[in-house]
Amino acid sequence: MKYGIVGATGRVGTLLVNIIKNSEDTLGAVMFTGEQTVEFPSDTVITNDAKTLLENSDVVIDFSAPVATQKLLEAALENPKPLVIATTGLNDHQKNLMIEVSKKTPILYATNMSLGVAILNKLVSMVSEKLRDFDIEIVEQHHRYKVDAPSGTALTLAESCAKARGLDLKEVMVTGRSGHVGARTKNEIGVFAVRGGDVVGRHTVGFYNDGEFLELNHTATSRETFARGAIKVSKWLINQGPGLYSIEDALNLKD
Amino acid sequence: MKYGIVGATGRVGTLLVNIIKNSEDTLGAVMFTGEQTVEFPSDTVITNDAKTLLENSDVVIDFSAPVATQKLLEAALENPKPLVIATTGLNDHQKNLMIEVSKKTPILYATNMSLGVAILNKLVSMVSEKLRDFDIEIVEQHHRYKVDAPSGTALTLAESCAKARGLDLKEVMVTGRSGHVGARTKNEIGVFAVRGGDVVGRHTVGFYNDGEFLELNHTATSRETFARGAIKVSKWLINQGPGLYSIEDALNLKD
Amino acid sequence: MKYGIVGATGRVGTLLVNIIKNSEDTLGAVMFTGEQTVEFPSDTVITNDAKTLLENSDVVIDFSAPVATQKLLEAALENPKPLVIATTGLNDHQKNLMIEVSKKTPILYATNMSLGVAILNKLVSMVSEKLRDFDIEIVEQHHRYKVDAPSGTALTLAESCAKARGLDLKEVMVTGRSGHVGARTKNEIGVFAVRGGDVVGRHTVGFYNDGEFLELNHTATSRETFARGAIKVSKWLINQGPGLYSIEDALNLKD
Amino acid sequence: MKYGIVGATGRVGTLLVNIIKNSEDTLGAVMFTGEQTVEFPSDTVITNDAKTLLENSDVVIDFSAPVATQKLLEAALENPKPLVIATTGLNDHQKNLMIEVSKKTPILYATNMSLGVAILNKLVSMVSEKLRDFDIEIVEQHHRYKVDAPSGTALTLAESCAKARGLDLKEVMVTGRSGHVGARTKNEIGVFAVRGGDVVGRHTVGFYNDGEFLELNHTATSRETFARGAIKVSKWLINQGPGLYSIEDALNLKD
Repeated sequence: MKYGIVGATGRVGTLLVNIIKNSEDTLGAVMFTGEQTVEFPSDTVITNDAKTLLENSDVVIDFSAPVATQKLLEAALENPKPLVIATTGLNDHQKNLMIEVSKKTPILYATNMSLGVAILNKLVSMVSEKLRDFDIEIVEQHHRYKVDAPSGTALTLAESCAKARGLDLKEVMVTGRSGHVGARTKNEIGVFAVRGGDVVGRHTVGFYNDGEFLELNHTATSRETFARGAIKVSKWLINQGPGLYSIEDALNLKD
Repeated sequence: MKYGIVGATGRVGTLLVNIIKNSEDTLGAVMFTGEQTVEFPSDTVITNDAKTLLENSDVVIDFSAPVATQKLLEAALENPKPLVIATTGLNDHQKNLMIEVSKKTPILYATNMSLGVAILNKLVSMVSEKLRDFDIEIVEQHHRYKVDAPSGTALTLAESCAKARGLDLKEVMVTGRSGHVGARTKNEIGVFAVRGGDVVGRHTVGFYNDGEFLELNHTATSRETFARGAIKVSKWLINQGPGLYSIEDALNLKD
Repeated sequence: MKYGIVGATGRVGTLLVNIIKNSEDTLGAVMFTGEQTVEFPSDTVITNDAKTLLENSDVVIDFSAPVATQKLLEAALENPKPLVIATTGLNDHQKNLMIEVSKKTPILYATNMSLGVAILNKLVSMVSEKLRDFDIEIVEQHHRYKVDAPSGTALTLAESCAKARGLDLKEVMVTGRSGHVGARTKNEIGVFAVRGGDVVGRHTVGFYNDGEFLELNHTATSRETFARGAIKVSKWLINQGPGLYSIEDALNLKD
Repeated sequence: MKYGIVGATGRVGTLLVNIIKNSEDTLGAVMFTGEQTVEFPSDTVITNDAKTLLENSDVVIDFSAPVATQKLLEAALENPKPLVIATTGLNDHQKNLMIEVSKKTPILYATNMSLGVAILNKLVSMVSEKLRDFDIEIVEQHHRYKVDAPSGTALTLAESCAKARGLDLKEVMVTGRSGHVGARTKNEIGVFAVRGGDVVGRHTVGFYNDGEFLELNHTATSRETFARGAIKVSKWLINQGPGLYSIEDALNLKD
């Protein structure tokens, strides 16, 4: 299979290039802005034209920025190929464009390409619904440089827990406890952001009741997990018909 | 709701009595052998006749021994009531009798009444199937007096993992590693039995891949969890028609 | 050894009575208020006179309330015996009285009798001092009914960490993170209070740096740990000279 | 400070070069065999002569192989400079040579340069001695390619635990439990090797008793921790007099 990569010199893009180089697959074409920070195989097409990229790829993986993603989508309207898009911060115009293109070719869109997080999200939703008496508390941990809290992934997990019980997360989320706070109320969902060192990402969703508890943990040990996730869903995507897919679809996690 | 309890003075039976006393429900009748180690409400029928027990109960919970369970089942053929049975070590005759009785009344049979373990078993089966590239390793922990290893629950979890991948657990289970063992083989499933202190029960099923891992843990904090599980499934069972049910049915965990 | 117990029918007192009954030691005398909720050996002296209690004991363990502890101390001025005191909420007069009595007999005073917590406190102090580049974050967990946060023990552990680095805990403690908080500052110490189920007590002190981290955890699996701790330090205390001791002294943890 | 590096293109050597390039310190000189896999600052002396290396360095860090370490030591007899040596597999002649050189210059020798592991080793020794009633169980985890079990670090930790109680590790170590093994014996020390994914290294030493347990964990999140450890001890070493030091000396962990 021939891969095209948009954002090939970014943090995850670089990892993608190296994984493909060490696999049976081929790097068809790459697009990037700024300096070249990684060596491409000699027969790779280096281009800043999205049409050329699409023509030299069986599937395109995009870990870039909204402007580049828009160019890719515009070119794909005429030259449709399966697209795996992980770019965050897309505006409404760009999202609508994606929907338009997905009528002609399969597109998988997800802001977290970790397969483990996708399945964890499915699991916590199930447990939240089935074990309604259990108190829910989430602890997430990231490196000392992360500026926002709780993490987007922790919020997604909390949202899934709340939705499964018909709760509004905004009303029940607690991000810290200090002083004489009183006994825990039934519906509250604790979400705690631990920070320190160079931890890539740890998320633990706990369900606590009298006599027993469940703790479901996901740990990312390197950013490569996001690159590997994108490649895995690519292999699934090329066998699908046109449409807009989520990572849950790729894992066959939907009921 | 009026409960009947067989084995009312046993380790879990005693806990059941105390939970019912502190609830809105009623203790209808009790059967037990040996000394009375717990105080019953004054209007509880104390009997060693299974027919009397059934007549004074809306549902019967049985944490006893095979002989007492057999008496209960024989009486239930004539006086059918919903039965929750947690007795282990039943012989074939007793199991067939249970099937016979279940044609007239709903019976839930499970050797582990913890709801958390039931759902964990469902989760690990799902993950094992969906994330086939991930290495599976199970660590269980119990108190220093436990004589068998790995625990029955750990073996059940390992069995579910193996089955989901079409593997035969006997061929792939590893219970220790020592010396120059070489790199891990793809299909092996590690099951490690940690022993110490008074730990009631901890089970962690880990799924490990390059870049990420999932660890799903269940911890029992007291034996009360088994009592509470039995009461929860009782409330579900009384609304079912005749049949033989598992704890997965009660939690609606079957696909 | 003959034990005297003040508060013998309380939550920990009851456990103390049962442990002593099942040991080679003797229950000399007991004091308590309210109903008798536990059976004493037939030769135990039941009294509400502290002098009688002291005369019938080789060592006295006190898990009671300030008023009863004051009575015990006043009587001990005349009838000094080794005293293990775990009562919380003593006022200044009572503390001074304790110092007075400790000139005549050995007294060990601690508000947490768990040996594990005592040693954990020593360990975190050491690590905090030796590994000054490591970020410190503490996560504690208790049952859903606990009304204050963070736990007293978590605050003690945080205090030890801060002190070892010459920091003022009040200035550096963070009990929650939410929104755009910016990168972690070097000196902050996170202390998060997780609540749920019936968890007796879990404390994890984490030290995080680039490339590695340490997590030191203490878990109480039952309140018996406080009873056993008191008995263990009693056996040490009876061999000491007059003085006011801490649990660190009993464990020989001081440098 | 000017660093010399032996093995500058190896797995840890490469990390050392990059850390020094991004610091206020200087890369004085490097030695290596095979291909150059990392870019050195333009004023770095590249040499295969140990004497030249020593003359251009304030301190030398050596993550290489026994032959290169021997060359370094032989040259250092005439041109003594502080040496941090992490090479494994030295023979007796080479070890004696190291002792000889250490009479003229400070040498720190350790086969694990992680500061966290060094302090964990100190902690578990202390806990093992102080809490003699607690059962000891160690769980270590590494990536799926590790060929030996348990890890050298786990064995070192187990050895420290055994030694603190006057036990012979060979007689008490248990690396797996399967079947009807009977109740745990007082002195046994469990050491379990979990394998999977790309885990760099996790070690948990647990101490379990009735009512409570302690679990002390070290996790390496990247191999950089070994490079950073070497640099940290270098800065300490240059202020010491001649002698052979351990990493415990550098951390001031010895009593």
